[in-house]
Order: sequence, then structure tokens, then C-alpha cells
Amino acid sequence: MRPIITLLTDFGTADGYVGEMKGVLLSLVANVEVVDITHDIAAQDVHAARLTVARVWRRFPIGTVHVVVVDPGVGSNRAGLAVASDGHALVGPDNGVLSPALLVSDARVVELPVAPGVSATFHGRDVFVPAAAALANGESIDALGVQARDPIILRTPEPMRAADGSLVGEVIHVDRFGNAVTNLMGLRGGTIEAGSTQISLRRTYAEVAVGSAVAVVGSSGLIEIAVRDGNAARTLGLVRGMRVVLRASRS
Amino acid sequence: MRPIITLLTDFGTADGYVGEMKGVLLSLVANVEVVDITHDIAAQDVHAARLTVARVWRRFPIGTVHVVVVDPGVGSNRAGLAVASDGHALVGPDNGVLSPALLVSDARVVELPVAPGVSATFHGRDVFVPAAAALANGESIDALGVQARDPIILRTPEPMRAADGSLVGEVIHVDRFGNAVTNLMGLRGGTIEAGSTQISLRRTYAEVAVGSAVAVVGSSGLIEIAVRDGNAARTLGLVRGMRVVLRASRS
Amino acid sequence: MRPIITLLTDFGTADGYVGEMKGVLLSLVANVEVVDITHDIAAQDVHAARLTVARVWRRFPIGTVHVVVVDPGVGSNRAGLAVASDGHALVGPDNGVLSPALLVSDARVVELPVAPGVSATFHGRDVFVPAAAALANGESIDALGVQARDPIILRTPEPMRAADGSLVGEVIHVDRFGNAVTNLMGLRGGTIEAGSTQISLRRTYAEVAVGSAVAVVGSSGLIEIAVRDGNAARTLGLVRGMRVVLRASRS
Repeated sequence: MRPIITLLTDFGTADGYVGEMKGVLLSLVANVEVVDITHDIAAQDVHAARLTVARVWRRFPIGTVHVVVVDPGVGSNRAGLAVASDGHALVGPDNGVLSPALLVSDARVVELPVAPGVSATFHGRDVFVPAAAALANGESIDALGVQARDPIILRTPEPMRAADGSLVGEVIHVDRFGNAVTNLMGLRGGTIEAGSTQISLRRTYAEVAVGSAVAVVGSSGLIEIAVRDGNAARTLGLVRGMRVVLRASRS
Repeated sequence: MRPIITLLTDFGTADGYVGEMKGVLLSLVANVEVVDITHDIAAQDVHAARLTVARVWRRFPIGTVHVVVVDPGVGSNRAGLAVASDGHALVGPDNGVLSPALLVSDARVVELPVAPGVSATFHGRDVFVPAAAALANGESIDALGVQARDPIILRTPEPMRAADGSLVGEVIHVDRFGNAVTNLMGLRGGTIEAGSTQISLRRTYAEVAVGSAVAVVGSSGLIEIAVRDGNAARTLGLVRGMRVVLRASRS
Repeated sequence: MRPIITLLTDFGTADGYVGEMKGVLLSLVANVEVVDITHDIAAQDVHAARLTVARVWRRFPIGTVHVVVVDPGVGSNRAGLAVASDGHALVGPDNGVLSPALLVSDARVVELPVAPGVSATFHGRDVFVPAAAALANGESIDALGVQARDPIILRTPEPMRAADGSLVGEVIHVDRFGNAVTNLMGLRGGTIEAGSTQISLRRTYAEVAVGSAVAVVGSSGLIEIAVRDGNAARTLGLVRGMRVVLRASRS
């Protein structure tokens, strides 16, 4: 089995930062499989990076090492972390991007030391990639640093139950298609209220007419608001953080 | 020889949908080579996806499996397909994106069943990737489903011969450089008329001055309209579907 | 060790040109590792491509072959090159994009012949990829063509020393974060003047308040101008070619 290392950054690819990271990985780990998750996270958007990590990290084979570098605090005194969690390893800054793996009860977390002479602006290349390479080469996580105390954990906000029984949540992400993912878990039937719009919860986009709004349970189990063959965020004015209310249908 | 699976989607990469697909593929197929064709097809642009499939599918080694997910109808009753054609395999929705492979005379096509519990919004992960993995692992296409009847085949429109002997075609694609690809096959000499612009057909961009319009036979054998060191679509107002006329030069 | 071939283009991925190149490479080189550096260089931006090549080419393992196709002159009489330099090989057009490797004193450079029948618009697929495949398969560079005379070499301009002892340089690149990379080498302390703005040179972004301008030594050793958690190019109006002045601090 070839070692697998994934990359998830907000670097884009044009400037060559990702190319440098790949070159260093291929130089340090014989026969490594380097997998691009994305380099198109919006610049410095720790929140979006965390949600993408949540989607992908456990889909990979056991033993995969994930390198996550969305790191507005690079060069500050924020720590760098390596995490071993549920058979996977992750490295990245201590700013919440690794939260999905940190929430697993037996996760082990160490603080990565920063060697003298390391670039103050590019820990992706100089700290996180070498740590990932060491893990892919079989190094134990405990050999990489001392146990981290109180790493930053960010959580998706929980919906609240209102007095009338409805659930009050919010839009947590708008995807490339303009679908607005909420923090409301799926349920059969009901209506979503977003601003002044009432939207029925259906099983699939195809149950409404082209151009109509529809709420469905998306592929991570959360309710999302879409417009069939259209862009819901644009059409309905949906943005991250916007309040949405779920009312169960009367049966 | 490692099994090769390619990915062609309109998902972008930032939301993590592609990352999930890669993780599942690497979990299901030992030693697989996953190759990104693109994730930047414009959202739901079945037409553009079909043209990109046409360009690439036969360039890969025999035995390659292509996963094509541009799928506005996901969750509706549109079928999912697996195709074996000319030594390659393809999986994707039955909406025309797989047409280039379906046009081969001895292509075999099956309809992929949708297992209960599968996401109604992400067949890329839950239907097409598992089917591709099965094919890459040596499963026969006939084991994946029953023969499809009348899969949707989209074709690039044929140019028409006008009474004066000219060929009337259209712009079928505008590429990243602003080059407008037409449905007119190459020929030596002649003039292309696009709107009110007359453009000479030359062998290379370099035969005209910087900033001038030029028509050349592009790398897929079709005539395309360019502006040397510029963007023809922007400069000349060229858009997909626009009428173009080819007049042979008098000799 | 698997042969490694990297790709660096301005093609984007949506049109399928990169997919074709990957297909041809995988068909020609058994067991090859194809690595995307980037396909997002701005269209025809030879200057930006050269800087990205400079960043990445030596980071890869010895024996890596780099395919660099940012090629506004395709089809003209510009030559195509293969370069062997410092244990790496590179192929691409003779327009300066390969300069970082050509500047090494014992670099060997040959001109690639263009076979009859080759596309006049896509040497990436028809000239450079076959040459890269030959090199990855162990072919000697001298077997690929005759020695090139006077390949084009582009250099980053040198800063100049002004009468008052300050160094006068310029912005050579603006990256995805809006950081403006200059041609000034790092030094401890000092002030950068960009337009009417005075910016202190610090060790890290974090030494100034959020939203403030800061100059730091970036990861390639050059001074860059940033705005902490912001976009310096946008905030300060920095563009490529803009004059910047470095004044040492009085000690």
C-alpha cells in the first residue's frame, strides 16, 4: 500500500506554493500518493476549511495523512498541530481547521516545534509538510512534539428549539452551485423559512419545477436550500450566517 | 499496470465533494491512480462537459475508467449509466455527457441501479464512484446493471451547405483563451465570417499581427477563431451558438 | 522509483487540453506519476510562469521532468526546448519560461524538432509531452534535438542603489492573498516605501495589528508587502512593476 497524503489549502495553485509542497513531499516520502483535496478555499477562510475537512477526512483509507493549511496566523505564536484520530493523521495550524478530528474522543494531539531558520510565512512547506512526511514514513505522532494543551476546537452552531416547536438554525455554507447548507438535520416533511421565503422539504430537487426553490437533505445529512437548475443563494439572497427556521409538517 | 480512474465534474474542489469521491475511490481500489481531468466545468453545463469528454476519453490507456458527473438531474428518474466503448469505460448520468463513447458502434451500456439509502443529491459519491471502482477492480460491465435502452445522445450540430456553396456553422465552445471553436472542419484557405467580421483562415496565429483576428485549424481538427495574443470572444463578441460562415478561397 | 512528470500551464482544466496531455503521458510512460503544479497561470503570462518555475523546479526529486507550457507563440518560429539542469529536466517553449534552469552554468539545452502533421496550436500535447515522456523513459536529452543557440533568458530586474544609500526595486508579483512580492532581498529592519505608504519590515505578519500594512521576508527570501488578514494589493494599490524603495533603519 502506497502512503497517501492529501493537501487542503487556500493557496490557489498559480503562485507555486502548492507546487513547492508537492516537491518536498515527493522528495521526502518514497512512492507517496499526493492527493489534492482543494486549494480553492477562500483566502484565510478557516470556517470553510473546517467544513471541508469534516466532509473528507474519514472517507480516505486508514493511515492517510491530511495536510490542512489555511493559516492566517502563520508566524504568530499560534501552535502547529499533528493529530492522530480514528486511524487517520492530520497536520495544520491550531486555529480550528482540524476540529473534526479533534472531536473524536481518543484523538492524540501534539504541538509541532518550529525549527530555527524556518520561513515565518510558509509553515505549509517548512513545518506541516515535513511533519506529514514523517508520519507517512511511519514516525509515531509522539515523536513529533509534546502533547498539545487545549487546542482550539470550532463547532458548527447547534439549532435551537423555539417555543412553538420550530427549529431555528442558520446557513453554514454556500456551495459552488449556490446551494445553502444549513445546520438543520434532515427530517421527512416540513417547511423551511429563509427570510420571507417558505420552502418545502422534498426528497430531491426534481420534485419541484425548474427555477423553483426546494429544500432537501444533502449528502452530509444536513438540510440544504436549492433552486432547481438554478442558484439559490443568488435567487433568494442566502448568505452564511442567515437565520433559517424548520417547521415540521402537521400530520 | 495500475488501474486509472479519471474525474470530470462541475463540482469545483472547495466544497469537498471531489475530495469525498477521491477518498472513496482510494478506499475501494488498491493502488488506483486517480487523475483529475477537470472540476471547473461551468455548473450544470452538460454541453461543455460532453465536448471535454470528447477531447480526452480516448487519449488515456486502454482500460481507463472515466467518471463524468455533470448532473443537473441527480435524484430525478434520469438513469445512471456505465459504458464500455473502444477499450475504455465511462460512468455518469444519462443526460448526454457520455455521448462521445456511446456513438462508437459496439459500445455496451448498462443502467446502474440506485441502492436504497443512497443520497438523492450526490450520485457522484454514492453511485458512479462505486461503479467505477467495480470496473477498475475487474468487474464486468454486465454485472453492474441491465442493458440501457435509448440512452440520450447529444451531437454537435452539423454545418449546412448554403446555396452559394459556403458552409454555415456555429460557435460550439469558447475556451479559456477566448478562442471560439466552431463546428467547421479544417480546410486550406478560405474566409470565416462571424457577425460583421471577415477572418482569414491561416495555418497559425503567428501569421497575423498581434491583436488581429485569425482563424486556424485547432488541435481537434475544427476551425477556431482567435485574436493573436488576445481574447477573440471578448474582442469580437463571439458566444456559443453564434452563426459562422466559411467561404472557400477562389483559386 | 516511479518517474515523475509535472505540468505547469495557463490552460485551465475545463477545456480538456490538460486532460489530453495527461492521457498521452499515461499512455507513453508506464507507471508515471503526473503532478499538477498549476494550470491557473493567467493566460499567456510568461513572466508569472517563470516565477512559478523558479519556485518549484528544484524542490522535486532528482530526475523529475517538468513540462511548462505558457506559449503565446505556439505555431510561430519560436523554438521548443528541452533542458537538463542540476539533475532535473524541463521542456517548454523558448520564450523565457525555462530561464531559472537555463541560468545554471552547466545546463544543456536542445531544440525540439516539430514533426510534420503536428497541431500548430497545441505543442503541449504534440511536442512537449512526447519529449517529456522520452526523457522520463530514460532517453538522453541529446537524442531529442540539436543544441540550442541563445535560448531566451528572462531575469528578474536587479534593484538599484540610490545616491542616498536606499535600494530601489519593484513589485515583481502579486500573489493570491494580495501580497506584493518585490525584488528586494531580505534584511533585518528597515522601511519599505511603496507609493506614499511607509511600511516597516518585520519578522512576521503578526507583529502588526489586523488590517495594518507590514513588510516581511517571504518564503523565497524576497521582501513582500502584506496587510495582516487583508489584501495588500487591493488596499495599497500595489501592482506588478510598481517602484518600491528599501531604506535601512539607522542603528
